[in-house]
Amino acid sequence: MDNSNMNGLSVLDRVRVVLSRPSHPGNIGAAARAMKTMGLSRLWLVSPASFPDPVAEARACGAVDILGSARVADSLQEALSGTVFTAGLTARRRDLSATRLDPRAAAAELVQWSQNTSGEVALVFGNEASGLSNEELGLCALPVTIPANPAYASLNLGAAIQLMCYELRLAAMEQTGGTPFLPAEPLPEPATNDEIEKFFSHLKSSIEASGFLDPDKPRRLMPKLRRLFGRARLEKEEIAILRGILASFDTGIKATRQKQ
Amino acid sequence: MDNSNMNGLSVLDRVRVVLSRPSHPGNIGAAARAMKTMGLSRLWLVSPASFPDPVAEARACGAVDILGSARVADSLQEALSGTVFTAGLTARRRDLSATRLDPRAAAAELVQWSQNTSGEVALVFGNEASGLSNEELGLCALPVTIPANPAYASLNLGAAIQLMCYELRLAAMEQTGGTPFLPAEPLPEPATNDEIEKFFSHLKSSIEASGFLDPDKPRRLMPKLRRLFGRARLEKEEIAILRGILASFDTGIKATRQKQ
Repeated sequence: MDNSNMNGLSVLDRVRVVLSRPSHPGNIGAAARAMKTMGLSRLWLVSPASFPDPVAEARACGAVDILGSARVADSLQEALSGTVFTAGLTARRRDLSATRLDPRAAAAELVQWSQNTSGEVALVFGNEASGLSNEELGLCALPVTIPANPAYASLNLGAAIQLMCYELRLAAMEQTGGTPFLPAEPLPEPATNDEIEKFFSHLKSSIEASGFLDPDKPRRLMPKLRRLFGRARLEKEEIAILRGILASFDTGIKATRQKQ
Repeated sequence: MDNSNMNGLSVLDRVRVVLSRPSHPGNIGAAARAMKTMGLSRLWLVSPASFPDPVAEARACGAVDILGSARVADSLQEALSGTVFTAGLTARRRDLSATRLDPRAAAAELVQWSQNTSGEVALVFGNEASGLSNEELGLCALPVTIPANPAYASLNLGAAIQLMCYELRLAAMEQTGGTPFLPAEPLPEPATNDEIEKFFSHLKSSIEASGFLDPDKPRRLMPKLRRLFGRARLEKEEIAILRGILASFDTGIKATRQKQ
């Protein structure tokens, strides 16, 4: 958006807002409106119940352009493809929750990643009733939780999107206005979402072959490993190293099998 | 609310959310829901177009109790009576703008006033279409403006309320000394330094055995792997998983060697 660029907030154009399985077209319209008020523009919809829909257009008010350029994907993987960093909203407490970020920290991290890499980042919201599934959340590098009343933490989807987009705008303003003349140290190139997914596929097949992962009794092993490497925010070179290590192990495993 | 008191957030019970001349009952419901998610409870309505209204109840979801205890006033003066500090939302630029607060500063000030005086404070929102009139804004001690896209600053009323209530909750948590994040889930037990060193020894010997790491040409592989896992801050359980994986690979490698 020209306006964002003028304000040095072009980083907001590289933030995808991904709605996974939204049930109510009104919420898609509310998302578009919330995004546009904060200068965001890239809306992705994964298997929306109804889209396009006149109800969405009515709720979007002056933000129908965001609906017009929205992308529809068949899977969350597809919507995240090509991103360098992803964060997913969750209200639930679960055992993987210890590394959750609050909205402010998550916004700072998303903006920083996008700025350092010029790559796209994604903020993922789940279905209105059920939120993100464990599997969906597992595809995100980090979970984000909005601090809410423990007795009633049920934010409306549009309200949650508004709040996150607001924090993203503030983070973008802060980071572009903070120390504009001190260029950040160039960070090593981060792995893309695709590279990370390929690594996890490789890891899974290697530890299945080695007998460590029993496909019939997976014991939440892969989610735990995703959480570990998600915290690390893998770099491109590290993926190459890890996959090299796996390949060197694969050879040994194949040899064992041939022997048997 | 008991819950707020338990968390030292009783100050939120002294914040009135005042909607002046709301046109759409749906927005009154959205306001109730947004307030309750952040632990606020005192809703005041000045000359609402329709209240009570089933549309408001539907939109309030589990926050109908807030609607039930809402107060209806004939004038903004009446709704502000008895408060010690008031802030009014405005998107418009006008000559008062030099003293406008952003949401974060406004929330901090509201909480501080209420805490220092044990009095009630009010946050005032205008009509959906026209906002607060100059006269209404004149009754508030300070104007507040949400930083928004100058090309499209039209926040939905419910979204604006959600955002302000969120900032109030964060401000209350900060001023009462709580962390601005969710209370205390027990962190998974971190690995000790000793356990981490044993893991790195194991990793080194496994990738030497697999042929990936050449002891004569180590190529900074181990420092790179240390950096990766260092960023993740390994937990005790994760060390057990990683060493289990290595052991499963070691078996394959040993078999290969015996074969050779």
